[in-house]
Amino acid sequence: MAHTAELIAVGTEILLGNIANTDAQLLSEKLAELGIDVLYHTVVGDNPKRLRAALELARTRADIILTTGGLGPTYDDLTKETICETFGRKNVRRPELEDWLRGVFANRGRTMTENNLRQTYLPEGCTVFLNQNGTAPGCAFCEGGVHVLMLPGPPHECALMFETGAAPYLRALSHEVIVSHTLRIYGKGESEVESILHDRIVKMTNPTVAPYAKPDECMLRVTAKAESAEAAEALLAPVVDEVMDAVGEWVYGVDVDNLESVCLALLRERGATLSAAESCTGGLIAKRITDVPGASAAFLGGVVSYTDGVKAEVLHVPQALLDEFGAVSEPVARAMAEGVRAVTGSDYALSVTGLAGPDGDDRGNPVGLVYIGLAGPNGTTVRECRFGRRTREHIRQQAANTALDLLRRALRQAT
Amino acid sequence: MAHTAELIAVGTEILLGNIANTDAQLLSEKLAELGIDVLYHTVVGDNPKRLRAALELARTRADIILTTGGLGPTYDDLTKETICETFGRKNVRRPELEDWLRGVFANRGRTMTENNLRQTYLPEGCTVFLNQNGTAPGCAFCEGGVHVLMLPGPPHECALMFETGAAPYLRALSHEVIVSHTLRIYGKGESEVESILHDRIVKMTNPTVAPYAKPDECMLRVTAKAESAEAAEALLAPVVDEVMDAVGEWVYGVDVDNLESVCLALLRERGATLSAAESCTGGLIAKRITDVPGASAAFLGGVVSYTDGVKAEVLHVPQALLDEFGAVSEPVARAMAEGVRAVTGSDYALSVTGLAGPDGDDRGNPVGLVYIGLAGPNGTTVRECRFGRRTREHIRQQAANTALDLLRRALRQAT
Repeated sequence: MAHTAELIAVGTEILLGNIANTDAQLLSEKLAELGIDVLYHTVVGDNPKRLRAALELARTRADIILTTGGLGPTYDDLTKETICETFGRKNVRRPELEDWLRGVFANRGRTMTENNLRQTYLPEGCTVFLNQNGTAPGCAFCEGGVHVLMLPGPPHECALMFETGAAPYLRALSHEVIVSHTLRIYGKGESEVESILHDRIVKMTNPTVAPYAKPDECMLRVTAKAESAEAAEALLAPVVDEVMDAVGEWVYGVDVDNLESVCLALLRERGATLSAAESCTGGLIAKRITDVPGASAAFLGGVVSYTDGVKAEVLHVPQALLDEFGAVSEPVARAMAEGVRAVTGSDYALSVTGLAGPDGDDRGNPVGLVYIGLAGPNGTTVRECRFGRRTREHIRQQAANTALDLLRRALRQAT
Repeated sequence: MAHTAELIAVGTEILLGNIANTDAQLLSEKLAELGIDVLYHTVVGDNPKRLRAALELARTRADIILTTGGLGPTYDDLTKETICETFGRKNVRRPELEDWLRGVFANRGRTMTENNLRQTYLPEGCTVFLNQNGTAPGCAFCEGGVHVLMLPGPPHECALMFETGAAPYLRALSHEVIVSHTLRIYGKGESEVESILHDRIVKMTNPTVAPYAKPDECMLRVTAKAESAEAAEALLAPVVDEVMDAVGEWVYGVDVDNLESVCLALLRERGATLSAAESCTGGLIAKRITDVPGASAAFLGGVVSYTDGVKAEVLHVPQALLDEFGAVSEPVARAMAEGVRAVTGSDYALSVTGLAGPDGDDRGNPVGLVYIGLAGPNGTTVRECRFGRRTREHIRQQAANTALDLLRRALRQAT
């Protein structure tokens, strides 16, 4: 039987708009992967009466309730007490948690104030989830056929506790194992991918193939249910192959984080190095690459050449090119890529010059026009892109994505 | 009488975790500014039965219901129809909307398919909110003392329609005007700010002063209610002055977007230019500055010097300094700032060199150690920072914030 879930976030700061309920997105995605249907998200403030009403309603319409927030040590943390009242459980002290908690504070070199001991009380008979990123433990119990799981609110605490505590608890509710692989796609939109695959995927039941739109890219999730992980993988393999035959051209990775981590992995495999010369992206490519831990193994650095002067002085773009063609041009993109490659001594170099808006340039070039260069051991290529009059943010992200995808394709060929 | 609101987001893609319910955060923040208490957020899928149940519940516990999503042209957009059924209104065709809609498509050079005409039907007698960023109009009506407002789901459509349509509708429900000013603070945490101001703010009722934690910074919101905007401003002025007397040292701006936009505004006021040399921040400072439209008026560019080689070759950091003190050191931060200032010819230059993790360096320097340099017309200063073993993301953002705040303080003095 398929399980249904409701997420209840507890926190006045969410209702005031001070923070977004990002836990709900993360948990929804993870629960979908476990084959659990999330039917509702609810947010209530730090108010026991309204929380109790939300819990009473949730137990009538879902068989799994996940709460986030309200597990901390202060007076407005009321989730455990309210859940205990609603489900008729005692909130009992767990002496073993006191030792653990004192250890957490000692490791941080901080003194534990006594109010922290509230965190050692949990509903009687529950499964305890230790908090590896904080001080408030979570827990789970089942009452009257409804599973209640409590997770802390801070996103990094919630995410880790879901993986280490809640996910194993939920997996054990089912005899089936669900395994997914995610194909990340750049250069084709969700609707195009869907139309290419439509006839193949529309009748599938196990595995299933589902396209999702992400900002500036899309992805395909291939999911199988089986008695074991091995059996699920055996079901998945031919379907992944079939999908790759149809749209593999645009798949930049399977179960990967993003384009930049794929590029870095390819660079490291080939023992090659990279630099970047950025005009309209203003450091975005360098920032994204160095977001990845260990980027220094392949990324040497870059130049943000926001003016003609920096292009000429630092990147040695000939002034004659700037004068004749303007900064936003194919020849300048080429010279920027070759310039930063020479200056840093990297094997590969990316360049971006274009108009992210709000204004065009005095040569009449439109917002959204971007030239992207790639210099490498086999020469230099430049691509002209027109990203249209969307937001500055969109144009910059698309320019960075296109540059990284160009590099990825070149590295794939350079085997 | 204070109004209470419930937000209902309609969209299976939120329950699947494909997108976050960011509309709820934005609307919550805006409703708080209007003095409306948001008591619940609810998310339901594209399912008329569950949406109807959510609406029936919401009308019993709030006097304003704001829905987001489900207003589009496709078969799973069911919000209007379900609301009409729930509140006993007809969904009627608005001929004038057809002309408007055909105009939107014509302006984009696209053909309008007939299913788009569904968007010209709205509940009888409603106030229409035109969509300036899309094709689905929104609307509002009042039934049995409950105001129902429908907004589109895509965040940029929802945000603009709230400002242009929903906010004026909601303001008209009250005889009072609510005005807020937001003081943005860097370098002091929420609890420190709260403790400095506690005695002053705890007894205030109008205006009120409320501290909020934001990632890596905090803010104070000063809010007044009065019969007119002028009267509210008159109440606010002395309170803002009093708060500034107490914590103004750390306030980087009032009603501003962020540190980078404040720095750019100060640079432009002074006719001064900026460059940046970044090691561990890897382009983050340049990226944040160039996120701001019009950054090119003051930002010349920068160098991402992720290796000693780039520091030496491009920034002319003496190899002897790198050998003797290592890349993460006060002398190298100083030489980087002076180097990028010389190379770009800027008036001011920031530099960052440090360890963002996951690993320390082979000199035994710890993760979180960062040197931040500022070179300017009056010489060069370097600050040593220890951001601790937090995440790579946190260390990089804190390093960028500290650098920008250092620049802001220098520019403030350079009047």
